[in-house]
Amino acid sequence: MKQKSFVTIMAGGIGSRFWPLSRNKKPKQFLDLLGVGKSLLQMTYERFSELFSEDEIFIVTSDNYVELVLQQIPNISRKQIISEPQRKNTAPCIAYAAFKLQNLHPDSNMVVSPADHLILEKDDFLMNVQEGISFIENNDALLTLGIKPTKPHTGYGYIQFEEKKNERFKMVKTFTEKPNLGFAKQFISSGEFLWNSGIFIWNTKKILSSFQQYLPDVYEALADVNYGTDTEETEIQNAYSLCPNISIDYGILEKEKNIFVLPTYFTWSDLGTWEALYDINTKNQESNTANTKNIRFNNVKSTIVHELNEDKLVVLQDVENLIVVDTDDVLLVCNKNSEQKLKEIVNLLSAKNFDEYL
Amino acid sequence: MKQKSFVTIMAGGIGSRFWPLSRNKKPKQFLDLLGVGKSLLQMTYERFSELFSEDEIFIVTSDNYVELVLQQIPNISRKQIISEPQRKNTAPCIAYAAFKLQNLHPDSNMVVSPADHLILEKDDFLMNVQEGISFIENNDALLTLGIKPTKPHTGYGYIQFEEKKNERFKMVKTFTEKPNLGFAKQFISSGEFLWNSGIFIWNTKKILSSFQQYLPDVYEALADVNYGTDTEETEIQNAYSLCPNISIDYGILEKEKNIFVLPTYFTWSDLGTWEALYDINTKNQESNTANTKNIRFNNVKSTIVHELNEDKLVVLQDVENLIVVDTDDVLLVCNKNSEQKLKEIVNLLSAKNFDEYL
Repeated sequence: MKQKSFVTIMAGGIGSRFWPLSRNKKPKQFLDLLGVGKSLLQMTYERFSELFSEDEIFIVTSDNYVELVLQQIPNISRKQIISEPQRKNTAPCIAYAAFKLQNLHPDSNMVVSPADHLILEKDDFLMNVQEGISFIENNDALLTLGIKPTKPHTGYGYIQFEEKKNERFKMVKTFTEKPNLGFAKQFISSGEFLWNSGIFIWNTKKILSSFQQYLPDVYEALADVNYGTDTEETEIQNAYSLCPNISIDYGILEKEKNIFVLPTYFTWSDLGTWEALYDINTKNQESNTANTKNIRFNNVKSTIVHELNEDKLVVLQDVENLIVVDTDDVLLVCNKNSEQKLKEIVNLLSAKNFDEYL
Repeated sequence: MKQKSFVTIMAGGIGSRFWPLSRNKKPKQFLDLLGVGKSLLQMTYERFSELFSEDEIFIVTSDNYVELVLQQIPNISRKQIISEPQRKNTAPCIAYAAFKLQNLHPDSNMVVSPADHLILEKDDFLMNVQEGISFIENNDALLTLGIKPTKPHTGYGYIQFEEKKNERFKMVKTFTEKPNLGFAKQFISSGEFLWNSGIFIWNTKKILSSFQQYLPDVYEALADVNYGTDTEETEIQNAYSLCPNISIDYGILEKEKNIFVLPTYFTWSDLGTWEALYDINTKNQESNTANTKNIRFNNVKSTIVHELNEDKLVVLQDVENLIVVDTDDVLLVCNKNSEQKLKEIVNLLSAKNFDEYL
């Protein structure tokens, strides 16, 4: 039987590092963060649509966001949306999708992609995806797309690979999550490291056997579900309650031996933080950027402003290195070096019953 | 004929240094800047009401603000409001009021007071006013209330006086507007200087003879108006167009020889800037202050926040020394040391046709 390839777009995150723009009711992937008239999910979906037909693209998201997905991707069929009853990080999410795909077609390849990353040079990206699918069709391995690092970013995962000349696909030696600045600098100068894009390509049989080996809890919880039947929804609720909350990186990739990385050259950002958005935005001479035209930067440096009300005038005077985000019900003024604390702020607000602002 | 005393509250300013809270349509004096449920004008009016009857208190304001005054001081009669056709600074304003009062009663004393200052210890203040009136009833002099300086403020006017022991009222030697920090420090350490409160007490005959001598343009333009008649309004329009734009300090007080100052001890602030408001507000341990309870200061120092929407959550993270003002249509984030630039910002916005935000 011929192999068939599918895309699984993961769109269940809450994007708390983009608070107060990203909110529980409408997280980051559903926002037009780049001001281009499309949400990040819409851009991701459109990108894959050039290579895959509608019935080959699945979106995995939380139950709560199914309606949002249907609104934003108007042509999508409900059966292309895989809805998770709980947030359990990426490992259960990917296992669920893999079982579903295997149920549809026993010899399925899956491209796993976050919904909320930025990718420029789409054609290069799609070519890499095609190369990757060909590779795993012929190799019983896991594959991740690697990004050439441009700075010693401490928020990304790094992949160390074995350098062998003339080999397009590199064997992975180690995965390292969020190194400190010293390590990040060493990683970059060594030339042996790539950023982990979070875009994976593998056969469902291969990834499910990795689950069986490294995350048997997840595998067993999900293996017995009657996929594609009326009982799937209730069985999945039960299965998810048994799954640990764990990422695919920590649960599988760091342990699996047979992983390859394809070095890529398209422009990529995980848009994980305000600083990542700042980095990719066009800036003025003093390195400021804003999503609104109704702004006056007076002697301001290295600052990003996101004002949701386009009629509102924003004036900054003699300040620098700030993240200023203004929504209808929340105003945030944050040191640009402190953006990693946004997650703490959100947790603290949650603990103090400020949920209406989350 | 017995002397009669009146109060003239000057309420025509635009308070641009309190932008974006103070707006053309509702300047500072009409705002509840202290969060006490009353505007500064209402507080000033109530203060004088304890000593003066309704027909003895006049409010001088711009034509544009007559309705606002009537709204805020519900019991006031329209004839107690002196309305100026143009803004020409304090000298023409005071001359106009002096002529009006002299027309009402030929031997009038007038207490001139800004509408938008903070005065605590009201009883001390009112006692000083009474003392002052007694003094000018018996001395053909101009009198100003002096404030004991608490810090080398560079935004205030300073009054140097001749020290003579056991004299309650001191002869003024010099007036100095807004000295630099070096001079301000010297002034304070010398012990010979007081802040100029902008609260004056004098007889209308005396101040008008000073106008005749030092500002003959203003005197002549206003002398021929038929006060209290149907033609006053049009005649005043003409007279004002002939008046220079000049302050009472610069036009008269700095030149007049026979001026006294009464040192006072009530707590006073001109509330001229955000920093002045910051200074008088209650602050938290890290020296932050906000008008809203819906605020989180996370590792923030020396910052003042004014959020008009009490339901909006304001979060500040790892910043210091800021003025943050958020209104429906303007957001300002300003270095606290740069507040003197607010006037420039307002002028620039005006020049660039951003009048809707002024």
